[in-house]
Amino acid sequence: MINVLAIDAGGTSTRAVLLNETGHCLGYGSAGGGNPISSGPDRAAASILAAAEGASDAAGLPPTSVTHTLIAMAGMSVSGSRDWVSGPLATRGFPPTVTVASDLLAIFSSGTWQPDGYAMVAGTGAAGIRVRDGQVERTADGLGWLLGDAGSGYWIGHRVAAAVIANLDGRGAETALVPLVLEAAGIENSAERGPDGRPIALRDLVEALYRMRPVELSRFAPLAFEATTDAVARAILDDAISALARLFSAISAPDLAGPLVLGGSVLTAQPRISDGVTQALLEEDFSPEMRKVPDGVVGAAVLALRLAGTDVNAEVFERITTTLAHLR
Amino acid sequence: MINVLAIDAGGTSTRAVLLNETGHCLGYGSAGGGNPISSGPDRAAASILAAAEGASDAAGLPPTSVTHTLIAMAGMSVSGSRDWVSGPLATRGFPPTVTVASDLLAIFSSGTWQPDGYAMVAGTGAAGIRVRDGQVERTADGLGWLLGDAGSGYWIGHRVAAAVIANLDGRGAETALVPLVLEAAGIENSAERGPDGRPIALRDLVEALYRMRPVELSRFAPLAFEATTDAVARAILDDAISALARLFSAISAPDLAGPLVLGGSVLTAQPRISDGVTQALLEEDFSPEMRKVPDGVVGAAVLALRLAGTDVNAEVFERITTTLAHLR
Repeated sequence: MINVLAIDAGGTSTRAVLLNETGHCLGYGSAGGGNPISSGPDRAAASILAAAEGASDAAGLPPTSVTHTLIAMAGMSVSGSRDWVSGPLATRGFPPTVTVASDLLAIFSSGTWQPDGYAMVAGTGAAGIRVRDGQVERTADGLGWLLGDAGSGYWIGHRVAAAVIANLDGRGAETALVPLVLEAAGIENSAERGPDGRPIALRDLVEALYRMRPVELSRFAPLAFEATTDAVARAILDDAISALARLFSAISAPDLAGPLVLGGSVLTAQPRISDGVTQALLEEDFSPEMRKVPDGVVGAAVLALRLAGTDVNAEVFERITTTLAHLR
Repeated sequence: MINVLAIDAGGTSTRAVLLNETGHCLGYGSAGGGNPISSGPDRAAASILAAAEGASDAAGLPPTSVTHTLIAMAGMSVSGSRDWVSGPLATRGFPPTVTVASDLLAIFSSGTWQPDGYAMVAGTGAAGIRVRDGQVERTADGLGWLLGDAGSGYWIGHRVAAAVIANLDGRGAETALVPLVLEAAGIENSAERGPDGRPIALRDLVEALYRMRPVELSRFAPLAFEATTDAVARAILDDAISALARLFSAISAPDLAGPLVLGGSVLTAQPRISDGVTQALLEEDFSPEMRKVPDGVVGAAVLALRLAGTDVNAEVFERITTTLAHLR
């Protein structure tokens, strides 16, 4: 009797599903951030354990019934020791062996059971992979807010903030993003000027933004989509589309057609971006079939089943997605 | 008998000069970083004291002979208590009252004794001021590496690093900056690829750069000037010129002709930038007389003399610069 536990451990939330070997989802659970880099290993392990226990409780099966555990998480966490998470799981009766897989491969496998294609994710960060024979053959970007993640939510939000600051400082074009950013940052949009000749609102905004962690600038990204008629916002989004098209060109190979699985809020919740990327790829004579997925939990289940020896074909994949849809 | 102590306290070095009321420089001293934000108040006070004692020793005059002390330092340090520096100075016999002035005003006053004009500085950061009747009337930028400092050494160096990373990652144009940045970062320029399909050198470079403080990326700025025929480097420098031209447009006023005093290594040591800015201003029908200054110590002396009641005219200004030149 084989039961697999598949966990999609993200920076802000963690999802777990318990399945039998036919791909029938028996229980689902979720919890907070499960990435050991961003949440710290103790909190990440607690989230993963909470999601796992939620899934086994919902399935009405004890942790000891699980035969294989797979956790999908971001790149840097894939290597190295897993004691921080395998220990706490074993303490509660889950099997002591944990397999870790790439979160990008889980996103890819959430969109298709086929062994070849591409995945691109643009949420707070941005990265892409080429998959061949079920393995990651090429990765691009995912290199962090300061030096990479081109086209990501951080990347857009940082440009939005800098454009507003330049406008208020008299160095940049007029933009309708000014009132939107000031409101989002909780700063009064007053015309009053300080002794340096600049708006008081500029000083208050700069102080507020430097108090945030840089990656938190991603929360201004949605404002670029709100300001639909603003030339500055449009230019930022056009640049993001170009950056994501270049991301695809870095992972694409002429002998590998697709599909292209899209994940992350920028690529899945903003048609302006996904349509723009489709158009940009068409101009380069690429037209991969595109599929949007909300997270990597289906893909984690696919990878966990393969680990347990199940041949995940169209029928099994269909069973995973439909039975999971009933659970969450 | 009036003797003034003028101190130019910068982030990496501090300069002090002791003058009599006619503008005759009697002694000069220098020390390490004197900015309380970047060096911490204790180390900054120690640097300022060391430079001040160097100047009084060289002049052969005791600290008690000083009647007025003025310290020029970066914006945020101008307001607030001065106890951190006035205390240590008084302990060694310097007068207990310290006047603090804007480092940008000291740069301006290093280039001219006249009361009206502009100053722009582009070193690690970038900022500009409009000066009228000897007072700062308008400031622009100086808003830090993450959200401002457009056209600065950080701004250029960050773009150089990001362009090299994008090239190595297959997302950006080929650039001759790659070998230059890898060498500067001490990373072997090997063609070997890792399991993710990317050059090992990319991984090593990204790790090395994230170990640095972000502002340290400014050390890659000079490489953009070395790669004279590289299109990527040229585009970065053209953008820097545009940013600095916008900085000037933010401070310029139609009724105020100039001069424009330039400070900081990007604007004073790179003719490509200063010539480009001159050209960009000409296209906007601005042609202020430009003067480059190496630091703000002459201007600190001008401001200190004015504080002591001296009318700093062309003759006094000339005396400051020629007598100081003999001392350092």
